Amino acid sequence: MTETPLAPDTLEKLKSVSTATISTQLIKIAGMRTRTVRSVHAINPANASFVGPVVTLRYGPMREDLDARASIVHEDNPTRKAIETAPRGSVLMIDMHGDTGGGALGDILVARLIYRGIAAAVGDGAMRDIGPLMDMGLPVFCKTGTAPPSSASIFAVGVQEPIGCGGVLVYPGDIAVGDADGVVVIPRHLADKVATAGLEQEQVEAFIKARVLKGEPIAGFYPATERTMTEYRAWVSSGRPAI
Amino acid sequence: MTETPLAPDTLEKLKSVSTATISTQLIKIAGMRTRTVRSVHAINPANASFVGPVVTLRYGPMREDLDARASIVHEDNPTRKAIETAPRGSVLMIDMHGDTGGGALGDILVARLIYRGIAAAVGDGAMRDIGPLMDMGLPVFCKTGTAPPSSASIFAVGVQEPIGCGGVLVYPGDIAVGDADGVVVIPRHLADKVATAGLEQEQVEAFIKARVLKGEPIAGFYPATERTMTEYRAWVSSGRPAI
Amino acid sequence: MTETPLAPDTLEKLKSVSTATISTQLIKIAGMRTRTVRSVHAINPANASFVGPVVTLRYGPMREDLDARASIVHEDNPTRKAIETAPRGSVLMIDMHGDTGGGALGDILVARLIYRGIAAAVGDGAMRDIGPLMDMGLPVFCKTGTAPPSSASIFAVGVQEPIGCGGVLVYPGDIAVGDADGVVVIPRHLADKVATAGLEQEQVEAFIKARVLKGEPIAGFYPATERTMTEYRAWVSSGRPAI
Amino acid sequence: MTETPLAPDTLEKLKSVSTATISTQLIKIAGMRTRTVRSVHAINPANASFVGPVVTLRYGPMREDLDARASIVHEDNPTRKAIETAPRGSVLMIDMHGDTGGGALGDILVARLIYRGIAAAVGDGAMRDIGPLMDMGLPVFCKTGTAPPSSASIFAVGVQEPIGCGGVLVYPGDIAVGDADGVVVIPRHLADKVATAGLEQEQVEAFIKARVLKGEPIAGFYPATERTMTEYRAWVSSGRPAI
Amino acid sequence: MTETPLAPDTLEKLKSVSTATISTQLIKIAGMRTRTVRSVHAINPANASFVGPVVTLRYGPMREDLDARASIVHEDNPTRKAIETAPRGSVLMIDMHGDTGGGALGDILVARLIYRGIAAAVGDGAMRDIGPLMDMGLPVFCKTGTAPPSSASIFAVGVQEPIGCGGVLVYPGDIAVGDADGVVVIPRHLADKVATAGLEQEQVEAFIKARVLKGEPIAGFYPATERTMTEYRAWVSSGRPAI
Amino acid sequence: MTETPLAPDTLEKLKSVSTATISTQLIKIAGMRTRTVRSVHAINPANASFVGPVVTLRYGPMREDLDARASIVHEDNPTRKAIETAPRGSVLMIDMHGDTGGGALGDILVARLIYRGIAAAVGDGAMRDIGPLMDMGLPVFCKTGTAPPSSASIFAVGVQEPIGCGGVLVYPGDIAVGDADGVVVIPRHLADKVATAGLEQEQVEAFIKARVLKGEPIAGFYPATERTMTEYRAWVSSGRPAI
Repeated sequence: MTETPLAPDTLEKLKSVSTATISTQLIKIAGMRTRTVRSVHAINPANASFVGPVVTLRYGPMREDLDARASIVHEDNPTRKAIETAPRGSVLMIDMHGDTGGGALGDILVARLIYRGIAAAVGDGAMRDIGPLMDMGLPVFCKTGTAPPSSASIFAVGVQEPIGCGGVLVYPGDIAVGDADGVVVIPRHLADKVATAGLEQEQVEAFIKARVLKGEPIAGFYPATERTMTEYRAWVSSGRPAI
Repeated sequence: MTETPLAPDTLEKLKSVSTATISTQLIKIAGMRTRTVRSVHAINPANASFVGPVVTLRYGPMREDLDARASIVHEDNPTRKAIETAPRGSVLMIDMHGDTGGGALGDILVARLIYRGIAAAVGDGAMRDIGPLMDMGLPVFCKTGTAPPSSASIFAVGVQEPIGCGGVLVYPGDIAVGDADGVVVIPRHLADKVATAGLEQEQVEAFIKARVLKGEPIAGFYPATERTMTEYRAWVSSGRPAI
Repeated sequence: MTETPLAPDTLEKLKSVSTATISTQLIKIAGMRTRTVRSVHAINPANASFVGPVVTLRYGPMREDLDARASIVHEDNPTRKAIETAPRGSVLMIDMHGDTGGGALGDILVARLIYRGIAAAVGDGAMRDIGPLMDMGLPVFCKTGTAPPSSASIFAVGVQEPIGCGGVLVYPGDIAVGDADGVVVIPRHLADKVATAGLEQEQVEAFIKARVLKGEPIAGFYPATERTMTEYRAWVSSGRPAI
Repeated sequence: MTETPLAPDTLEKLKSVSTATISTQLIKIAGMRTRTVRSVHAINPANASFVGPVVTLRYGPMREDLDARASIVHEDNPTRKAIETAPRGSVLMIDMHGDTGGGALGDILVARLIYRGIAAAVGDGAMRDIGPLMDMGLPVFCKTGTAPPSSASIFAVGVQEPIGCGGVLVYPGDIAVGDADGVVVIPRHLADKVATAGLEQEQVEAFIKARVLKGEPIAGFYPATERTMTEYRAWVSSGRPAI
Repeated sequence: MTETPLAPDTLEKLKSVSTATISTQLIKIAGMRTRTVRSVHAINPANASFVGPVVTLRYGPMREDLDARASIVHEDNPTRKAIETAPRGSVLMIDMHGDTGGGALGDILVARLIYRGIAAAVGDGAMRDIGPLMDMGLPVFCKTGTAPPSSASIFAVGVQEPIGCGGVLVYPGDIAVGDADGVVVIPRHLADKVATAGLEQEQVEAFIKARVLKGEPIAGFYPATERTMTEYRAWVSSGRPAI
Repeated sequence: MTETPLAPDTLEKLKSVSTATISTQLIKIAGMRTRTVRSVHAINPANASFVGPVVTLRYGPMREDLDARASIVHEDNPTRKAIETAPRGSVLMIDMHGDTGGGALGDILVARLIYRGIAAAVGDGAMRDIGPLMDMGLPVFCKTGTAPPSSASIFAVGVQEPIGCGGVLVYPGDIAVGDADGVVVIPRHLADKVATAGLEQEQVEAFIKARVLKGEPIAGFYPATERTMTEYRAWVSSGRPAI
């Protein structure tokens, strides 16, 4: 599949848009209600924000006699391939079938991801070395931390395939965005639209929130009405003064 | 149902009683073992404490053609009604059927709850805008954060009805109390008794805990015996000196 | 069962070995993939590290007419026995059948554990008084906090038996180790081997991680190869200079 | 809400349409993917088929001091109201919050439902007296059988409200249909359309299935194409001969 | 614990009492709502009925190096002890910690149970050889069938201890009763009372059910009122004519 | 991967070996404890037995805008490819990520599988048209029946890849075997060994079971000892007389 090109400022715009807003836009723009990765959270909620195109990695359940081949010593090991070929700025998304019996990534592999400039790692299972990971700076999302290595429970079978991750269908090249609410995956062909509409919504809602905290009732004001937008635009024109 | 009046100092007393102590009193006083909301936790454990009478809101599963009516634009939308009519100091408890596919409240609705002086919000599903919510000051309890709006998964169907929330039967007017252990709901007609007995237990246990940390064995001392109470009263009479 | 004696420095060594490393060694040394307690986490992740021999306590489901006997007032109550007889430095591991309807330990029992010099407490159910527990200094692991007392849901039936805790078979005297990734239980007869091999792995991996963060590719270097070990030993010989 | 009138033959038509076909039509006609009750099955798969308008009953969690009021001795007990006022041919759908701690209906209440001509009973929790129920002739759907009475775990709080049942939003008057695949709930305003289109699909698919079993390849034939329909109509015109 | 003696006809009476009725009596007589084994069902619903005193067997999770000792070759293997020492007519109840990774009993062990005259086997995990078991005549209850042997996942650790089975606290000597609704465990000291009251309830409810099926309204008749009992006694006096 | 050739009688032998016996052999021969598909059962337990080489099909979660492409109208639709290219006698195994929101196969696709001579279908999610499927003759295994089509919840993404199915790693060409206990997947390279050893075990155990039912104690006889084998061989030599 040749990748739809993105507008040059799409990723930059998305850095200012919350996953909550993106979810809303995906429903408005495309009727999509199923784009939030279920059951994962940021290991370090204070370091949860990221945006980037997806590189996929897929695990199946382990089989006892495949331990040796599971090792990333092997050149064709899918984990190694994913880590070594993912472009700078990309997001590694891992289909672990929801299994939490072993951690897909630990501190050394995360060290490599950091060196290679990966933007974030997301797996719908476990990660290990959670203590060190909290301070290493890479946003990592998973269901839980656990001590055993991945080979105790799962086995890497493919890279850059379509995968399911936490109930979301993910294609390589889709745009993943994360924050404290979790991770949303935007189908690549919708990313420009979602970024533009999302950024606008974000700015309007900052205005609304400030007004509501000062006592503006919700009725007729939120969700944004004609009046809200008129007042918003007036406020923008007047240079966005403190509310 | 006309509401049982509360003693004037009941809510104040409960502010010094932990949910653990209240749970114990509910068993002692009324044989109730089922009054702790299951599977919810405070978004910000450092801002988990609250006490207040309950206002209820009930969601059912969403239905695709009801999206429009789901919007709080509508005057008769139950979410809007609950938010706009809940009295200052009340606790908004939401029956979400345990569904976590969409967040019942996000930062703008929470902003409104804060302005209106609501004491806390508790839902047995998801909330959104978890990042901002952590710092906004309202104690919020849920199962998890998630990005999608409530309309992605649930649909508001009623206010001020009896509801189930996390396995607890909740009537409007019941007294909800929260802290880091979770949320306990006291049937209104028991609140005075629980507050008085709970406060007493709290004070005795502070004394016991201090003594146990200094080496007092548990046998014959905790749970409080005749001897414990005699020593406790002597300590109170002597002006509660440092232990 | 007479207990296998431990080498005098085994517990000390294990204090420098992560649970992730221990899990790896248990697979390497003994083919054991099932020694990590599932579904528990440290109440306070910043206070999660511990090492010690296990004392076991077992709960069954509660039965309504046994409430009285459940109380730790009774001399033969298993919880009381476990708390009062566990040696200094031991780890209290509790089989709660995964039940989270009541907290096995609250702040007063934890105060007693602290006074008695217990190293940590681990239960595959709930604990209560989570707020105070976070600051009391004892590493406590559980599935969740909850308000009700243990008697609301579980009933102590035995001490120092073989138990199951979070899917791990635990014998009294096994060596439990905890950190932010969770809790691993080393069969006692393997502890010396795991400690020695684990400490070595820990030191090599610290070297590897430092090098990987500086740009060393993983291929041919991690997992440790001949070359890695040669370079590691050279680095050790040269006095472990900054990398 | 005044009920949309149904075409006179809608219920009759639906008797010949499977829930699988209805699910397909609800997606085609209205984009509805959420109308199948999750996690319930027929107690007796050989007696699973029914069609009828819904009467709703809602339970919350039990509260220990409300046992007395829970009894259907009381005239205003919602279970009694639902059973005694549901019209002949209606389907009793029960929101049990997914709780399986007590059975909502046992053999005596089912005896009454049978006498009153109710078409079926569906609850997203447990039923009791499963043995006798299997032979009594009323289609009953639930998650599981269990021995305790409903009062052990749940408490009836309302009738003829909008409810959630197994993840489906159900309004009184919606049309419920059951068979071995489970239960589908058609929003009342769509029932005529779904019945007509569903009956047509059912007849076409019987033709397709017979042909496929004889060797007709699927490509270009199923899902139905122009060619399929032409051949189907020819077959109908020629008096539906054996295939 | 010396066992409370049972009245000579208690077990016989219980053979005519359903688990649903026993559950009701346990609530009425002793306030016990927690005596039904959760999540288990009869492998063959047509062969689910049994009554007998309990012999307990307890499993913990397996440990890879204990395989050898797990074998029932060993004289002190708890499974072997339980099977070989359980008295004729007793019920083998197995605490499997809910684990379904291996079957506790297969067709050969069940053959031995049958030869030794055991009344039934109940485990809160898996059984294997489900196909043959369906026709061998012993009532067997479990969560599911599975192919692997118990040693793949669990390890027998004790006999005739108090255990938890499907959320029920079970003591050796308690009276277990099974039917299509599941398994209820009567605390031994309550068995006489429950049998007598249960049998009476059973007979009255048969009368009620027959009358309700003929059109008797529930109001004032069920649950049994003064009038019901008067009419019941009259019907009994007149020789229980067909209703 | 070129497929290991099978001995000519391997599949035939496996027809007389239960999945329980195969599971035991996989542990004995290869230390494999993870080869039984979890949480699936035969739709019709009386029609559960099958043996055959695996063809794989993989689904990911659905995405709303891919509905059109999901249709098996398209030539490159993986479901269509799998159904149309699977050889006679093969077993279709489907990775549905455990999702039960839509049925992967219904009666028309099963009709095609039957016509094409497929041996069985196994999916770790739902199937639809369960009623008709029970009588159509193809062994079908799944978690549950449900009404909606697969497109309501899942989306086919690949054929003949390595997949995970109910926690088992499955390669195309592996040998799947099913019966009332469930489905076991034998790695292809082990199939000959497992078949031969399994058949032997099956015959010995039939002898053991018959003897145990006549009163032979288990001690020293089962699991098979030297003595068992001597007696077994004598019995075989003497023409397998009735026991």
